[in-house]
Amino acid sequence: MSEALLKARAAKLDADDQLGAKRKEFVLDDTVYLDGNSLGALPAAVPERVADVISRQWGQLRIRSWDESGWWTAPERIGDRIAPLVGAAPGQIVVGDSTSVNVFKALVAAVRMAGDPAGGRDEIVVDATTFPTDGYIAESAARLTGCRVVAVTPGEVRGVLGPRTATVLLNHADYRTGRLHDLPSLTAAVHEAGALVVWDLCHTAGALPVGLDEHGVDLAVGCTYKYLNGGPGSPAYIYVRADLQGRFDSPLPGWNSHAEPFGMRPEFEAAEGALRGRVGTPDILSMLALEAALDVWDGVSIEAVRAKSLALTDFFLECVAAYVPAGRVEPITPAAHGERGSQVALRCEDAGDVMRRLVEAGVVGDFRSPDVLRFGFTPLYVGFADAERAAGVLAGVLAGS
Amino acid sequence: MSEALLKARAAKLDADDQLGAKRKEFVLDDTVYLDGNSLGALPAAVPERVADVISRQWGQLRIRSWDESGWWTAPERIGDRIAPLVGAAPGQIVVGDSTSVNVFKALVAAVRMAGDPAGGRDEIVVDATTFPTDGYIAESAARLTGCRVVAVTPGEVRGVLGPRTATVLLNHADYRTGRLHDLPSLTAAVHEAGALVVWDLCHTAGALPVGLDEHGVDLAVGCTYKYLNGGPGSPAYIYVRADLQGRFDSPLPGWNSHAEPFGMRPEFEAAEGALRGRVGTPDILSMLALEAALDVWDGVSIEAVRAKSLALTDFFLECVAAYVPAGRVEPITPAAHGERGSQVALRCEDAGDVMRRLVEAGVVGDFRSPDVLRFGFTPLYVGFADAERAAGVLAGVLAGS
Repeated sequence: MSEALLKARAAKLDADDQLGAKRKEFVLDDTVYLDGNSLGALPAAVPERVADVISRQWGQLRIRSWDESGWWTAPERIGDRIAPLVGAAPGQIVVGDSTSVNVFKALVAAVRMAGDPAGGRDEIVVDATTFPTDGYIAESAARLTGCRVVAVTPGEVRGVLGPRTATVLLNHADYRTGRLHDLPSLTAAVHEAGALVVWDLCHTAGALPVGLDEHGVDLAVGCTYKYLNGGPGSPAYIYVRADLQGRFDSPLPGWNSHAEPFGMRPEFEAAEGALRGRVGTPDILSMLALEAALDVWDGVSIEAVRAKSLALTDFFLECVAAYVPAGRVEPITPAAHGERGSQVALRCEDAGDVMRRLVEAGVVGDFRSPDVLRFGFTPLYVGFADAERAAGVLAGVLAGS
Repeated sequence: MSEALLKARAAKLDADDQLGAKRKEFVLDDTVYLDGNSLGALPAAVPERVADVISRQWGQLRIRSWDESGWWTAPERIGDRIAPLVGAAPGQIVVGDSTSVNVFKALVAAVRMAGDPAGGRDEIVVDATTFPTDGYIAESAARLTGCRVVAVTPGEVRGVLGPRTATVLLNHADYRTGRLHDLPSLTAAVHEAGALVVWDLCHTAGALPVGLDEHGVDLAVGCTYKYLNGGPGSPAYIYVRADLQGRFDSPLPGWNSHAEPFGMRPEFEAAEGALRGRVGTPDILSMLALEAALDVWDGVSIEAVRAKSLALTDFFLECVAAYVPAGRVEPITPAAHGERGSQVALRCEDAGDVMRRLVEAGVVGDFRSPDVLRFGFTPLYVGFADAERAAGVLAGVLAGS
């Protein structure tokens, strides 16, 4: 299809886009920002809200804000704001700490729920292609609980499940290729083996329906600075399915997870519910910036987000195919919708240099070593004209190299 | 001494106070704020700096800020800002995570450095009167490393040290009584037993000289929202003495502590130096608010802070003795300077109700169950007239009860 036709189609798709109005709730410029899968753009409501948190809540109310400004209950309140986006009923998610720390809590707790490792369930199965931190933390959790790590590709997971499997840690979408893994069937397979599954939702929460409750997921973790636009290093979250909470035995039982945190009792007694996932004092500034950022989800259905995400990535791939000389880039993101997250990854020679020049030309994606160009599509603020323009700039950069 | 004389002395002490000018670098009102040992007051530079972090660094530069705005290196850069306040040379402190999480890293790493617990060093000695989270986390660290917790009062620590001691976790100042423990001699005693010491500096960093390097402390942790005024839930820090860093084996080896974080390598290889204390993506908003808050320390000597702190708490105790009927309150903070932190704790009947009425009358301290009134004195923004006024209001509240 010609450039003129593709531009016309982009204009039509943008005009018909029911999520198009959301774009004005973000701070954007004339850059095509396709790195929201690394750091989401700034929601316009955040600066004023954080200014109020600092100047009034901290500056004037000071210590009183722990009660009066709702600081103390922020981890569970904001967890409940994230819950509908990942298909969870209230009371199962708390926000706090980093993703790595939450992976640690989830894995150790899962091993403990699976039974005594010395009694047989002593394997933690991990996606060998995962974002590395998950694997590092899994090694540590295994070492501390007397387990061993079994690292396999997602396709091999079913083959290694068995009576020794304690828990399985999987990424819902691969950070590099953008491949979406089959959460319902993998969850069922893990359960069939008598083990617990921990899903890492960093690359899917806010981009597509996850259905944690519907699919009976045991535990899940995720960050909030990608498709949830919470800001740089905004706190992560942990989901503990309601009926498992009574057995959730955290390796990080800080005073915030105590049944009576201000009782200052020397003996630990775990709080009821998702609060068991809390640890120490929550970082209020980052947390309340996230809360403000979540306002953009008001009135948005995650199904509509998914539909637009697939349409955007389809259209970008079509534009790339039309504009970029054959063989110059190779999509490694699956073509099948059921296997695609919300990013497009292209294998490309000199990818690092190409991305540098793309950024200079106003198209921001990112480079993943050794040869991957990564373009994230955030349906709340990326449009079809952006996708067309990005493909055109990519073709221009490659023609000049 | 009469009220008039005490007021005159307060005025003279404030006029002669070399730190008095620092007060205008904070946002204060006509409240007497004596809860800086719980949440430090807002430094005036913070709102504008955080607004810039949000609107320009996040909103405009977005992902580029990880490099261009120095986000990536913030944990070690801000650690080096804290270092001189606790007597540490650069390169030994990183900022991030909560105090509880840092206690966990420090204890597990200390047990590992002490030798194989199965080989004999299998005891973690903990201050039984400590802030409870330290004890809860110590229990968890012990359970995961095959150790057991020995909980004793600080006075009993020396008596339980021996060939089974792996590590000792101590609070530099007791959160309830304000008692300062003898860091140099306790550190020496732990070393004599062949064990490692972990100091929790939450209630001393920023209030008095700590001398981590001078006294050969092994590991230390602390929060930054008390005397360092970093804001609600601002990130904590961990100190790892330079010559121990090569053996610091973290139980939370996230990708931020990898030798090559963006290599995305499946095998973990620890970074050199204090970076080993990092875990996941740092929470930038809270962290850069802290960095701005630390500007108030420019030109301040911690020795001058300590001198004023002792003068303030002495004067407050003197005013309390003058104004409050004998027997109505009992100071539980030691009178000896060498045993006093930067707070005054008074045992008082109906302390919860008394504190509520003090707050209503514009004197903010806090209540610690069951019967303690706690008043924190932050020398950078609390003056002698504040101390006199607080004692007067306390006397009035007690007279009315």
